[in-house]
This record gives sequence, C-alpha cells and structure tokens, in this order.
Amino acid sequence: MKQKQNLANFFNAQTIAVIGASATEGKVGHTIVKNILSYGYAGEVYLINPHREKILKKKCYASISEIGVKIDCVIVVVPAPLVYDVIADSVLFCKNFVVISAGFGESGLSGHNREMQLSKLAQDQGLTIIGPNCLGYIIPSLGLNASFATGMPRIGPVACISQSGALIVALLDKAEQDHVGFSSVVSIGNKMQVGVSDLISYYATDPATRVIAVYLEGVVQGRELMQSIARAVKNDKKVIILKAGQSHAAQKAIALHTGSLAGDDEVFDYALKKVGAIRVATFDDLFAMIMLSVHTIDMRPNLSFRNIGVITNAGGPGVLVTDEIATKKNIIMSELSQNTIKVLTKKLPPAASTHNPVDLLGDATVDRYMIAIAQLIRDQNVDVLLVLLTPQDHTPVLEVAKFIIETQKKTKKIIIVSFIGGRKVANAVALLRENGIAHFASPQQAINTLDHLLSKTKTYSLAFPPCSISKKEKIDNILKNMSKRRSLYFDECAQVAQIYDIPTIAHHDITKGLSAQIHETYPCVAKIDAPTILHKTDRGGVIYPINNLSELHHAWMYLRHSFNDPLARIITQPMLPIKNELIIGMKRDDIFGTVVVVGLGGIYTEFLNVKVLFIAPISLAEIIHTLKVGKLAFLFARTRGQQPYHIEAIAQIVYNVSKLGNDNSAISAIDINPLLVYNDDRGDIVVDIKIVL
Amino acid sequence: MKQKQNLANFFNAQTIAVIGASATEGKVGHTIVKNILSYGYAGEVYLINPHREKILKKKCYASISEIGVKIDCVIVVVPAPLVYDVIADSVLFCKNFVVISAGFGESGLSGHNREMQLSKLAQDQGLTIIGPNCLGYIIPSLGLNASFATGMPRIGPVACISQSGALIVALLDKAEQDHVGFSSVVSIGNKMQVGVSDLISYYATDPATRVIAVYLEGVVQGRELMQSIARAVKNDKKVIILKAGQSHAAQKAIALHTGSLAGDDEVFDYALKKVGAIRVATFDDLFAMIMLSVHTIDMRPNLSFRNIGVITNAGGPGVLVTDEIATKKNIIMSELSQNTIKVLTKKLPPAASTHNPVDLLGDATVDRYMIAIAQLIRDQNVDVLLVLLTPQDHTPVLEVAKFIIETQKKTKKIIIVSFIGGRKVANAVALLRENGIAHFASPQQAINTLDHLLSKTKTYSLAFPPCSISKKEKIDNILKNMSKRRSLYFDECAQVAQIYDIPTIAHHDITKGLSAQIHETYPCVAKIDAPTILHKTDRGGVIYPINNLSELHHAWMYLRHSFNDPLARIITQPMLPIKNELIIGMKRDDIFGTVVVVGLGGIYTEFLNVKVLFIAPISLAEIIHTLKVGKLAFLFARTRGQQPYHIEAIAQIVYNVSKLGNDNSAISAIDINPLLVYNDDRGDIVVDIKIVL
Repeated sequence: MKQKQNLANFFNAQTIAVIGASATEGKVGHTIVKNILSYGYAGEVYLINPHREKILKKKCYASISEIGVKIDCVIVVVPAPLVYDVIADSVLFCKNFVVISAGFGESGLSGHNREMQLSKLAQDQGLTIIGPNCLGYIIPSLGLNASFATGMPRIGPVACISQSGALIVALLDKAEQDHVGFSSVVSIGNKMQVGVSDLISYYATDPATRVIAVYLEGVVQGRELMQSIARAVKNDKKVIILKAGQSHAAQKAIALHTGSLAGDDEVFDYALKKVGAIRVATFDDLFAMIMLSVHTIDMRPNLSFRNIGVITNAGGPGVLVTDEIATKKNIIMSELSQNTIKVLTKKLPPAASTHNPVDLLGDATVDRYMIAIAQLIRDQNVDVLLVLLTPQDHTPVLEVAKFIIETQKKTKKIIIVSFIGGRKVANAVALLRENGIAHFASPQQAINTLDHLLSKTKTYSLAFPPCSISKKEKIDNILKNMSKRRSLYFDECAQVAQIYDIPTIAHHDITKGLSAQIHETYPCVAKIDAPTILHKTDRGGVIYPINNLSELHHAWMYLRHSFNDPLARIITQPMLPIKNELIIGMKRDDIFGTVVVVGLGGIYTEFLNVKVLFIAPISLAEIIHTLKVGKLAFLFARTRGQQPYHIEAIAQIVYNVSKLGNDNSAISAIDINPLLVYNDDRGDIVVDIKIVL
Repeated sequence: MKQKQNLANFFNAQTIAVIGASATEGKVGHTIVKNILSYGYAGEVYLINPHREKILKKKCYASISEIGVKIDCVIVVVPAPLVYDVIADSVLFCKNFVVISAGFGESGLSGHNREMQLSKLAQDQGLTIIGPNCLGYIIPSLGLNASFATGMPRIGPVACISQSGALIVALLDKAEQDHVGFSSVVSIGNKMQVGVSDLISYYATDPATRVIAVYLEGVVQGRELMQSIARAVKNDKKVIILKAGQSHAAQKAIALHTGSLAGDDEVFDYALKKVGAIRVATFDDLFAMIMLSVHTIDMRPNLSFRNIGVITNAGGPGVLVTDEIATKKNIIMSELSQNTIKVLTKKLPPAASTHNPVDLLGDATVDRYMIAIAQLIRDQNVDVLLVLLTPQDHTPVLEVAKFIIETQKKTKKIIIVSFIGGRKVANAVALLRENGIAHFASPQQAINTLDHLLSKTKTYSLAFPPCSISKKEKIDNILKNMSKRRSLYFDECAQVAQIYDIPTIAHHDITKGLSAQIHETYPCVAKIDAPTILHKTDRGGVIYPINNLSELHHAWMYLRHSFNDPLARIITQPMLPIKNELIIGMKRDDIFGTVVVVGLGGIYTEFLNVKVLFIAPISLAEIIHTLKVGKLAFLFARTRGQQPYHIEAIAQIVYNVSKLGNDNSAISAIDINPLLVYNDDRGDIVVDIKIVL
C-alpha cells in the first residue's frame, strides 16, 4: 500500500511549501498562504516566490532547492504552463503535491496534454499529486487550511472528499451552522492521480474518521471504488455518496441485449448497495445524512433503532408524520409502554394524546414538553425521539429548545428535532444547531434521513473462487473456431453453457435436411440459428408447434428459403410447456465489469421492467437474498395457491452465468431468453441462449 | 347557492360579536378580542360577557339581545356545554357563527352528542357554523383577525383552508418570512357544517383569491369536493391540496375484487388530478407550491413555461441541477440562443461555461452575475431563470441578491433562486425573501415545485349522459330474481353486460347434463358457476382444453362431484386463443362513488400492479387519454413489431362498465377477468365476469 503511505504525508504534514505564494490580496496564491498561516498550524511553512522577500511577514524563497530541507507537501499555485517545471524541479525535496492551478484536463486540448505530461512525470518520479484544478485540503486537527476556502471547520469525525470545490464551500458553511466537525476535507479536482478510491482506502483505517462523505461526478474504476468502500464499511465507517451525472445514464432505446436492461445508474446504485455505502440523491440529503451520521456515530449498525417516539404540540404534524413513517421500511412508530401511557395520562391534560404520537396540544407549556420528553427517553420501547413544535401563541419555543439541549447531553438515545415555522422558530433552531442537536428543516427530512441511515448495510463478497483452468481451456477451444464471427451458434452456446453447468434444452441440427433416421419428439420447434440474427422470433425465425415429420419438413423448407444466409443453420428443439419465463443477461459494464440481470420474461419484459441485477463477483447467498427481497420476490412466495419457484436452482444458474462471464473476458454479452422455470419437479431449462464476443 | 350567500357574511362581516370575551390575559377569549381589536378592523365589534363592564377598554354586553342590532358574524368562545344555549339565544340577531370552543366531536361520546345537537339546531334555524374546535378566521384586507393566532398576514391572493390550526400558525409564520399574502385564512376544525368543498366553492368566484391552499385530513363527500375544485380551476384558481391520513389507506391484503386493486389513496389522487388540483406530499411542499404559485400567478395555464435557464457560480450544483431537470416531465434545460452564447462568450472569462447551465466560475463577481442574468432574461428561449449561488471566498452574496431583486421588479419572466449554504448566505436569503423573490431551500426543491406546478391541469367532465330508463328496467328485472343471492350467475352477468354493450363470450348451461344435441365448438372450456365461488380457477373449477364430447362428459362428471353446492351450475364456453388479457373492475368507493380499474391480466396482476383507474362519470376522451399516457400505454404503441391494441374499442368497454356501475347503484362490484384483447381483426371479448350486489 504505497499509495496509503504517501497519502499519510499529506494528512500528517509537518512541513509545507507553497510554490506561487502571492502578496496580492484576492489572488489564490495569497489566500492560500493566508489560510495556512491563520489557524494555528504548528508545522514549518515555506513560501516560494522569487520576486518577493516577504509575504505576510514571512520570508520567501526563490526556489524549493534554496530551502534545502525535505518537504512533506508542496502546494502548487503557479499558472498551468509553469506547473510541470516547478514540480520537476522539486522532486528531490518532495514527493507529495497539491496542484491548485486550473488549466489542465478540464480545459481543452492543450490542457489535456499538460495533464498527460504531468501524469507521466508523477509516474516516472513516484510522486503523489492531488488535483490539478482543485481547492486544496484542510485538516482541522492540525489547524491546517491548505486551500483557498477561508475558515476553519471544527474538528470532528467527517472526512469530506469532493470533486467540486464549490460544494465543499457550501457544505462547510452548512456544517458550521450545524456543529458538524471534520477530520479532513479534500478537493480532488481533476483526480489525475489521487482519486476517490485512494482517499476512501486511506480513511478506512484512519482513526480520526468515522463518516466519509463523497461528492463525485464520474467513476472510472468501479471495482476499486467498491473495494475501498467495502474496506471502510468493514471498519465501521459510514460512507455517504452523492453522485451527479445520472441523466447521462438515461436509457433511451429499447434494449438490444438483455444485459442492457440495467441502466448505468442502476448498476452504480447496486454497486454501492453491495458494499454497504449510503447513496443520497441531493446536496441537501447529503448534508442531512452527514449530520445524522455524526449524531448517531456510536450507534452499532446491528442494533435495532427502529422504534420512533414522536412528541408534538399539534395534531396535524402528528398525522403527517404518522403517514410518513408508515411508508418506511426501517423505522416504525413505537408502541409506548403501559407505564409511559399511565404517567402521561396522569400528568398531561385530558385532551392530550398519550399514545404515539404524543400530542401535547396547542397550548402546551414547556412543562408538558419536559414531562413527555423525559418519559419517552425513559421508555425502553423508544429508540429514537422525534420532537416536533409549531410556534403557537403561547408556545415557549426557546425554552423547549433549551430543554432538548439539556436532555440530549444526559442521554445516549438520539433526539431528532423539527421546529416548523419561520421567524418565530428561527432563534430556537439556531440555538439547537449551535448545541449540536440534529435539527431538520422538516419532519419529513428527519424521517427520511433516519430511515435511509438505518437501511441494512449488508455487504457482500467481492471475490469468486478461482477460475478453473480446464473449464477455461475448453471454452477457449470453442471460441477459437470462430475466426471472424462475433456471435456463437446455439450448439456452441450450449457447449459453453454445459461447461458451466447451465442446463440447456436438447437440440438437433437439421441444416442439411431431414433424414428419416432422426427421432424427434413431437411437438417440437424449428428455429433459424445464425450469428447475424439476434431477435429470431421478431424475424419470423421460430416455427411451432410442429406435430409430425411432414410439418417439420414444411418448416425446414420455409426457414431454408426465408433466410438465404449461407451461415444460417436450422435446429429443432422439443416444445416444452411454459409455466413461467425468466431472462438472464450478462453485460460487460465499462466501469463495474461483469453485470448480470435477471428479469421476468415474456412479451412485455422491457415495459414491465421487473428485474434484479448483480455485479460479479457474487455469492450464491447474495443472489438468493436479492431474489428474495427484490422485484421478483413474488415468484418465491406461496401466494393464492401458487407453489414457490425453486430459488436455489435459479440462483445457481444465475451464479453460473456470472462466473462464466467473469472468468472469460472474451465474452462480451450473454443473452438467455427464455429460461423456462417450473414450480414443480420439472427442472428449469434454458431454451434460447446467445453469446456474443 | 344559499351556502355561498351565507359564507359571504363571514368574509365581508361589518359587525362582529364575541360571546365569551375574556379579560384574562392568556385565555383564548381574551386573545381573540385582542386580535380583533389590534389590526385596524373597521367594522363594529361587540363583546359579550355578563360579568364585566369593559374588556380592553371596550364595553361589554350581558347578552346578544342587549346589543339589539343584526350581527354578521358571532365568534363563540364559551365552554362547550354552554355553546348550544348561547347560539340558540342568538338566532334572532345572527345566522353566522364561528365556534372556537373545543369539546365536541373530537372528544368522546358526550362531545359527539353535543355536536349532533348543535348540528340539528343549525339545520332547524338555517345557521351557518364554522367549527367547532377551530382557530377562527382571518381576513387581512379587512384588518380582521377573528382567531387566536396572533399577527396579521399581509394581503395577498392566497386563501388558506386548514383542518389543523397549528399548521395555519406554522404556515403564516413561513409566509411572513417569504412575503406571501392572503385573501383569507380559515380554520375549519371539526367541519361540522362548513367543509372544505363549501369554502373552495366560495373562493371559486372570489376575485381576491387566486390560489387556494388546503390542508385536510379526511374527505367524506368526494364528489362535492371534486365539483368545487373543478369550479375553482375553471375560474383560473390554483388549488393546492395537502392531505394527511394516507397510511390508513395502505392496502394490506391481496385484493379480493379487481376493483380493490385501487387503494383509497390512489383513488383520492386520481380524483384530484381529474379536476386539475395540485396535490403535494408534505407541509414543506405545500408552502413551496403556494409561494411559487403566488409568484407565477399571471402565468397562463396554457402558456409554455418549460424552458429553464440556469446560472451558477459552481460546476457541481450545475451538474446536479441538470440531472434533476432531466428526470422531469414538464420542464427542460433551455437551449440558449446563439446571440446569448455570443454575448456571454465575449463578456465572461474563457473558462466560464456559456451554455446552459451557465457557469460563472468560483471567483464570479457581481458583474458576471449581472451579465448572465440580464442576458438570459432577454433570451426568448428562456421562460424561467434559476439562479444558483455557493458562497465562495470572494462571492458578493448580498450584491447578487440585490441585483436579482432589481431585475425581478423589471421583468415578467420568473426568477427562482437557491443560494446554497448556511451562515454565509443567510442575510442574502432573508433579503431575497423580504423582497418577494421565490427563494428555495435547495435547487432540487425549486425544480420539483416548478415541474409539479406546470403539470398539465386538464380537467374532465363530471357528468354522464342520463341513464336510459329502459336499460335500467331491464337490469332491475334481472336483479329482482336474485332473492337472497348476492352475486349473479354467468348467464345473468352476460345479460346485464349485453344491455350495456359489453361483449361477452357465448356459453351453454350444461348443469342438467349433456345431451347429444348440443353443438359445442371444440376445444372448449367447462366451468363451475356458483354465487359462492369467486375465484373458480384457484378452486379447480375451470377445465380445459376439452376436445370432444367424451372429454366434456368427464369434465362434467368431475365438476358435478367436486362441487356439491346445490346452487352451482356448470357452463361451457368456446376456448379462445389468448393474445393478451386485461382485467376491468368496478367498485363502489365510500367517498368517490363508482371507481373503475383497468389492469394487465394474467397470473401476476396483483404483483405487477400495471393498472390505471377512473372515477365515474368519465368520458370516452378521458379514458382514451388516460390509457394513452398511463401504465398501459405500451399496449397502444407500435413497438418491436407489435401491432397496437385497439384503444377505442377497449375504452368503449371501460366506458360501458363505468356507466353500468354508475347507473345501477344496486350493483356493488363488477369483476371482468379476463377481457381478452387482440391487436388484429378479432373483437375484444369478456370471458369471465362476476357481478356482486
């Protein structure tokens, strides 16, 4: 883990140099120097500017060689065309650079070339470079702000990685308001060399970091990202990801291959779920999730935190919150204990509701809030307390806030709060936030964030058993016959499938004509089988039912003459009764590799979109679990007299297809359509399969 | 419209009396008097309290009769047990009351009885009563606050109707912050007599009201609600509805009847769509929608307002907003005009993005914002301008806000704004709000609200052609034979269906045995047909294919002995080839009346949930439109070589089922499962139908 060692130099830097330090107020090279010097950073700071003697009363050096000591981290702020040279001149004294300067990959061809050169320099010299085109980085515990965003966040458990500098600025501004602290903040810019995965891997074992918040716009190495997240999640870090760029992934055309049924964004989504990351949809959600994660940091992931107690001074919000919770999977309205109800009934006015949600009524005093909050905190049926308030005429808004602050100091139970209104609640909300209470802009946001945080973060294996050499040899033998063909005949597909224990239907090749000797079972099906024909049913290339030799002869004649492709074969298969059809597709995703889709078959596959997807490597356990909880779950339940379909058998076929795809990179796509499945003692069987190189 | 006349008395009240006026600070009867006297109400105010001479320096009367003049509106704040008497004593002087007092229907049996009595008094004496158990009402234009919520909202176009007083308080607090004004605010409490529909009907022709915002927890008279909304929408009022209580509508069991596939909340949702109301999901959404509606009040509903121009000083938010807009139906990222791009390219720095979203870069000055805002406002390809800002180091937050305020004053184009951050943007956000700019907490909220506001508000007919007397007589003739049966035999169903031109398959009754004379077409199906058996397939009561008389005999024997129900009949039907199956269900909804569901048939109907629903009365045009845009749309498109199914024919059958249900209230449910549909020249036909009384 050389990379990790190098990153540690940034995060524990004892000596820092700024190349391009500027004396001019308002210039980035000035702001960065000011920021480094302003917040009590105890390490050595060297400024490099050949034209100045001093900047902000600190000595300037003409070049890094003039300093003559090893530097842990060099911040580069010179114009883009100079960056290469100043780094090349520094390699004897430092291996770690943050390139703030813009004008690289993000800006046209010359910038792109500049980035290529810089990247090569880094590789040749073994450098670690953050950026270029970034905001810099901040380590609150060192008092080090090596960025051009002013201010110093408080120290805390959140590591923030962002591809957008502006979002860091907005996030830190919100965080300041909500008392959220950071272990470090890194703007990765063009991520030429240090990417999200490297940083997540670093934070995975960083004791100061317990929540990793990421904004990213694009992913290149999906597998690496998954591995880094899996490592972090295993070490009990929460990984929260906001990814932009979903719209580019919109699937427009009807899928040509079954595998394409999985849109890019769906694959990304599944990838994150598989390794236990929490994906959020908006910047607001990102911040709310960070805040709640920080507040619930000592919550063990396996502990049940499902039972919510709600206190309100108005019926309406109580009803709305009840509705909201009812739609959630991971939280429920707690059933308050008998004792709580007894105490509340005794101490609250008769018209108050003493069941959950506890309604203190519109004229609620601080006393009533105190009674209810104290009692629900004590109630063992309540894991999390949600306190709502609307600012009615005599509502003691500020006093309720103060009592919540006091209570949260004394309890390990989580209190989440939403005061609903505008100016009348503004001061109290500010007070709650300053004191580190989790206040949400709306009750709905509180509930959504909590539910999402509590979603099961079961993580799955990222490894397959090793590929069998003999299987691979057999497959290579089949594929090597293909010369220029890109797609396999059914016969070849069936051989490949057999090697991976994927059951395919029997078939006869009748391309050369029928002979009386062949013993077809009737009824049977005759099909055209050609590398060039992907959708043979649509093209009229499938004929059934064929009940006898004479009908078979007619079918043969028809197919022979309709498809005058010299490469086309004609095959027959027994006609099986259809109970239910699935489709299984394997595609090679640019970012995540082998992706497998399992969907409900039949004519409306694309429209109904009833499917689940997997990223290899997968385990049988993962497949079975996903089939059980996903959109196909109804196939495996006993409902309205339906016998369940055989989940283990289907999962095994899915596993085998994934393994086949994963082991044999020469195969670019597999289309099984249909896999006939039965909920009796007939075995599931592949009736048509297409393999494309 | 007597009701409307009466409501006008409340909204134009020139004389008001308060029965139960109190001198004690903190009591509701005191707060209300103070509120009525505090905001410049120019009408006469009479206080009634037999124990006091004066309250707040105003004379008190012992009773209403002592005043001796007609009163437009009496506010009643006495304890619940006294309410009946004080109103009964007042009927000679006033017909219009607002009962603030709690202790009625909301609080146990005695309260319930009290409400019954009061309701009867109102009916007998022709009174109009708002409440009981409400907050009162406010008319800003009269300076009249006849409620116990302190403060006076500004005058504006919003009428607010709420079943929760607390939500009014929170809403007014937010509205104050965001410069939103009201024509009136009414707390309807237990809505004993004056309900949401009455008020919406009133506002439908109130020139001061252009946006009607409603919070409601339950609906009793669905048809009335729909009619009142339709009236308001027709008069160009926006109707925005937040309804609580969705969770109670959760469908738990698998549907017994096809019609039950429509959950209560789905029916409510469809009802609102049908009449052009805008339904929001949360309190936050309600407020955001009110705000945007007010800001866009002069936007003609038919005008295209789809093209959004976006200005940002950071790439990240720009990308996130692009994603968000891409998922929306009613708005798109505008393609900026060539001239705009030319001007921006000339005036902005080279690294800025001059295409939509326009990125002014992190170091954007107010000048850059001015250039871009002015240019996009001028661009005819931009209908709505969204301005984003993140508070970076040199960002002139307040100046940008001021420029936006100035610009909005001078343009009719709508500017919506989201400044992203915490303390660094707080002052600017406050300034924007004070000046009536539509500022949203997040870009996402801005986009969601705009998209939702622009969703097509096509409204549909609420009337059927009159019911044909002769049809009704024929149906009554069939139904009168049923004595104690609750469900019809297939033969009877087919007769009923025929009367309403619903095509059903031919059948023979072979209950009494087979005779050689009957000329079955083979293959055929034999079915058990009994009032007690709803799911005959599940019960093994359907046998097919039957290929000859001998097989038919065996089927008859089997059914005869398997179902030893003396009422059971056995019928045969020709076995038709299945191309596609639909189901049509009619149910009687408690709130909205005749509801019809059309869904994809087959074994997984309940799981796939591919359906559309309708509330009668409906027109053929509405059915066709809904089928075209709803979840079944794929049936009517030409895709992958599929011929479209016949939308007119299917719509006609749906129409006929709706009319049958609507005309004949004796029928409580109709189940058509399946309707076989074809995309060739075969006619669609009902194969099984169940009618339940």
